Amino acid sequence: MSALSDDRRLHGHLIGQQGSRRALNTPVLVLDLDALERNIAAMAQLAAKAGVRLRPHAKTHKSVDVARRQVAAGAFGLCCAKLGEAEALAAGDIANLHITSPVVSAPAIARLMALNARSPGLSVVADHPGNVAALAAAASPDCPLGVFVDIDPGIRRTGVASDAAAVDLARQIDAAPGLTYKGVQKYCGREQHIESYAERKAAIVAQTEALAATLAALTAAGLPPPVVTGSGTGTHRIDQELGVFTEWQVGSYVFMDDQYSACALTEDGVSPYERSLFVDARVVSANSPMLVTVDAGFKAFSTDAAPPQVVAGAPEGARFAFMGDEHGAVIAPGISEGLSLADLVTLAVPHCDPTVNLYDSYHVVRADTLADIWPVSARGRSR
Amino acid sequence: MSALSDDRRLHGHLIGQQGSRRALNTPVLVLDLDALERNIAAMAQLAAKAGVRLRPHAKTHKSVDVARRQVAAGAFGLCCAKLGEAEALAAGDIANLHITSPVVSAPAIARLMALNARSPGLSVVADHPGNVAALAAAASPDCPLGVFVDIDPGIRRTGVASDAAAVDLARQIDAAPGLTYKGVQKYCGREQHIESYAERKAAIVAQTEALAATLAALTAAGLPPPVVTGSGTGTHRIDQELGVFTEWQVGSYVFMDDQYSACALTEDGVSPYERSLFVDARVVSANSPMLVTVDAGFKAFSTDAAPPQVVAGAPEGARFAFMGDEHGAVIAPGISEGLSLADLVTLAVPHCDPTVNLYDSYHVVRADTLADIWPVSARGRSR
Repeated sequence: MSALSDDRRLHGHLIGQQGSRRALNTPVLVLDLDALERNIAAMAQLAAKAGVRLRPHAKTHKSVDVARRQVAAGAFGLCCAKLGEAEALAAGDIANLHITSPVVSAPAIARLMALNARSPGLSVVADHPGNVAALAAAASPDCPLGVFVDIDPGIRRTGVASDAAAVDLARQIDAAPGLTYKGVQKYCGREQHIESYAERKAAIVAQTEALAATLAALTAAGLPPPVVTGSGTGTHRIDQELGVFTEWQVGSYVFMDDQYSACALTEDGVSPYERSLFVDARVVSANSPMLVTVDAGFKAFSTDAAPPQVVAGAPEGARFAFMGDEHGAVIAPGISEGLSLADLVTLAVPHCDPTVNLYDSYHVVRADTLADIWPVSARGRSR
Repeated sequence: MSALSDDRRLHGHLIGQQGSRRALNTPVLVLDLDALERNIAAMAQLAAKAGVRLRPHAKTHKSVDVARRQVAAGAFGLCCAKLGEAEALAAGDIANLHITSPVVSAPAIARLMALNARSPGLSVVADHPGNVAALAAAASPDCPLGVFVDIDPGIRRTGVASDAAAVDLARQIDAAPGLTYKGVQKYCGREQHIESYAERKAAIVAQTEALAATLAALTAAGLPPPVVTGSGTGTHRIDQELGVFTEWQVGSYVFMDDQYSACALTEDGVSPYERSLFVDARVVSANSPMLVTVDAGFKAFSTDAAPPQVVAGAPEGARFAFMGDEHGAVIAPGISEGLSLADLVTLAVPHCDPTVNLYDSYHVVRADTLADIWPVSARGRSR
């Protein structure tokens, strides 16, 4: 891909060169490979211990290289937010892809069926009889498409709104020759980010009671779900205790952005995962005593969360403020005395999924040495 | 480029096919070519009448195709926010590129000098003696690099903070054999978006008085600026009256996003420019009476401005709310009765520059027919 070639042409010669992280053009998305590998191993071990199937969510990383490491550590397959993301991972020979949003339009359904013919174990969610009818009309009994019933956790984004609707949809899927009824999905996105462990647990217990009732209704109708998929980085330890999900869609544990770092993931508050993803920026202007301007702004971080935290290269307590598309201020008393033009400042990532989407590649480091350059394989693949 | 090839492979067969805008996979960035051409012509005529040089800002569109049309209409060259943007436009043979942010690090300065050797009329800003020294050390008298003194309009992002510092920097540039003193840049970004014409005028009059004093100080020091570059879509009509800028860096007039559409650009409030840029999305879930979910979220729009306005495909008064990376709600009483799965909803663009950065290509339409697919040539080029 040309995007990768651009970064490889610019930085490929720095791979393996001691301390080469400091020689990179900025802003640059930096992935700490040691931390990534520890996160992948920790989650794989927990899922194995819990006896649940792990299907990590690729919406976080959009990367064939990360997906391969997750599969090598035991993941069954990968979840994808959109069809385009699944196409990008399938091109990297990742199998058992599950698309977690409905695919509804005629051109998208045509692409979905083409992907199903070449990608083993593909599945998708549905939440509407009209969509199931369209999928059934396009599917082939020779190569059935897996379909999950998507359950609305109460935010009205996607999903059926009642147990009766879930049963009707499961029945419709089950009856369609070209579709295979795979089970149900319930993704409680809102609950993932509740910072207090106790409050998050109370919220997810209530959601899980409702899910158990849905499962009972399906079972009573003769449609027991083969797979119950859901969970996330915020709740998977609680979901493990509750024991209802048979498959986890955890995503952000690989990177641990600011949002999840603010959450107590365990009862004792000790995180089993560590930050692995950063943006390195450089000072490009230093004419004011209490701030320096760095070369990272709206195009370097998604702005749907709080501004990024300052991790290294600036005095303790320095904070970041956006200054437009290309620039940010790093603010601390007397900062311009300690920092000079071109100095490196390392920032955390506020919300990893849409931030990763802004970059063509990961600059993968071990300590301060560039180890590899990986494409963000599904960057921009929102279709 | 592979990015373009992806969209061409997906949609190339629809070019010229009547009504084919409605057959596109979504979300998709749609550019109305008739409106774009009218905007480009209107600005070119105004600049010619005002006797100012037009160097439109490519940070808005990041597109060789749009830049070519601006040059064909009389623009002298293009402004670029970053070196990487300039490299992308130079690859499309756009000349007289001016980089409006300082280029400071050693790897970036090396790229800048390489670009200067192949891109006629290149210039950059500087705001610090250390940066001018680094540029001077890397530059060659055989192929001098144009340098403008950047003036801080009071936001402390970039620019010298005093007239004395401006004079010192101009003198240092002028004395360097490999650098050419080109003049000054003062970009009043904050003032561009003041919605009231009268308030914006008062603010820009004050900035212009300060700029006139800076110019007088430079002239008194024997360094009269050959070019005074600045202005923007919000203030260019006022700048025309004030007559201090000799070059306009206007950008957003080509698209007229929500931010600028909210501004009275003229005293009578009639806009000389019209919206040309949209995002088409599709309904992917419709299980709630008062909202439908469309396939456009944080990855389809930058979120540094207000959420996008709903332009077409939904009842009058419908509003958009973000629902995560991939989804948005379009909300209106009884909306799910009128809208079905896969129906198209057209949304405006809240802030064009970082929104364009999320897409690989423009889907260029005349009326409802896909006319062409243009790459976003400098997408992701923040380095």
